[in-house]
Amino acid sequence: MRRSQYPILSALILILAALATLPAGAAQTGLSIDRDREVLFQVSTIDALLLAVYDGVLSVGELKEKGDFGIGTFDKLAGEMILLDGICYQVKEDGVAYVVSDDLTTPFASVTFFDHDETVLIEEAANLTELVGILEASFPSKNAFYAVRIDGTFPYVRTRSVPAQERPYPLLVDVTARQTVFEFENASGTIVGFWTPQFAAGINVPGSHLHFITDDRTAGGHILDLRVDGVEVALDVTASILMALPTAGDFFDLDLTGDLSADLEKVEK
Amino acid sequence: MRRSQYPILSALILILAALATLPAGAAQTGLSIDRDREVLFQVSTIDALLLAVYDGVLSVGELKEKGDFGIGTFDKLAGEMILLDGICYQVKEDGVAYVVSDDLTTPFASVTFFDHDETVLIEEAANLTELVGILEASFPSKNAFYAVRIDGTFPYVRTRSVPAQERPYPLLVDVTARQTVFEFENASGTIVGFWTPQFAAGINVPGSHLHFITDDRTAGGHILDLRVDGVEVALDVTASILMALPTAGDFFDLDLTGDLSADLEKVEK
Repeated sequence: MRRSQYPILSALILILAALATLPAGAAQTGLSIDRDREVLFQVSTIDALLLAVYDGVLSVGELKEKGDFGIGTFDKLAGEMILLDGICYQVKEDGVAYVVSDDLTTPFASVTFFDHDETVLIEEAANLTELVGILEASFPSKNAFYAVRIDGTFPYVRTRSVPAQERPYPLLVDVTARQTVFEFENASGTIVGFWTPQFAAGINVPGSHLHFITDDRTAGGHILDLRVDGVEVALDVTASILMALPTAGDFFDLDLTGDLSADLEKVEK
Repeated sequence: MRRSQYPILSALILILAALATLPAGAAQTGLSIDRDREVLFQVSTIDALLLAVYDGVLSVGELKEKGDFGIGTFDKLAGEMILLDGICYQVKEDGVAYVVSDDLTTPFASVTFFDHDETVLIEEAANLTELVGILEASFPSKNAFYAVRIDGTFPYVRTRSVPAQERPYPLLVDVTARQTVFEFENASGTIVGFWTPQFAAGINVPGSHLHFITDDRTAGGHILDLRVDGVEVALDVTASILMALPTAGDFFDLDLTGDLSADLEKVEK
């Protein structure tokens, strides 16, 4: 290869490329700040979703700049979101997973760039509570956020989805009271979600919040329960969270001072 | 001015300069994500500080990359931090404000780049509670974070500071029970701090958390009470918060599931 005829230009490009890839922040002090891949990015809060703030505020295209892995819902609460390997799926009320366009918006989502930090081998768990218990026992700390990915064949998975809502929006607890439930047996697929520390209650779902999508990416939903048998759980430990709140719309006037944990319990189970 | 002899280079520089100044994220959707200046950056959580996690995890130099305005404390709980116009001051237990070196670390701080979004004129407030009540009544939403800056001459300000602690670290509520209190009369200076929504309780101080520094930047502290008379309050509305949690040390094994609001009340007043 011949030498560049534009040495100044080449040097400038190299310097700028180097600057662009420099991680920001604190390499020395054991604090993980906003290096792009190590931030859990969250749109709005779970309590706002419980209180029927369903209008989308961020596009899927913009969300993908913040992660390649995550869960959430869509404008008007139209189904369950699974963001996996950079592709965003919408499990609609028919239980079918559709690849969505970047223009669709979300009122609530959590995403990160998934890096496989830790592996937990689970021989058997009879239900979701057992699975989460085993996971929690393996965590290096309960004061961090964990992205959770499980690829495998699952003896049983029960999921749900919800249809798009119309104004006046009903509360989430009233929507999920009429949710559609799907059951999968010996289903190969991927579980995608997060474990959130208790101190972030109100902001996100404390404990686990997991969605499912089949191997062929055609079906799935929000996991209500499951049975697992010999799976490897991949964890991405995430110590930084960037929460972006809506700056207009229903969110702005909402009374978010109440304790909605009882509603959340009903919605999640 | 003559035309550039390096048109490609010039064009490249212009494009790169334009890219560098582009705000990331969602200009169209009313969601403020991580444009550099519009994020409240927070180190650790208030509950961790209440539970005596006092070891510094981020340097002041690194903190200044995240903002030019804010409050916090220092390694070993050594005094009260005021970050103002990009200069970081430490009000030690003697009530004197010292400019600190970038090497000093913090276990807990909140900073942002202050942009004057809104002004609130306060004719009179007999105490801190009244001041905060007037501010809250003026907020466009109680579901956002506000950076609060008040430059003026204050009839009365009462502040405190605390000395550096030794291991085993006592709880914050036990440290502040022995705090040193300072009183200022007709003091010109600046009030620096934040107002945090109730839903972020546990993470930061719900309501107001204000520090004070005199005009000549020689004294100040954490504000316990004050009287104001004809001041203009400058507000920076901040809808995004980036919270960076320690990834090691005391924080990791802490039980953060309790409700520490009673302790916090004692510490703040």
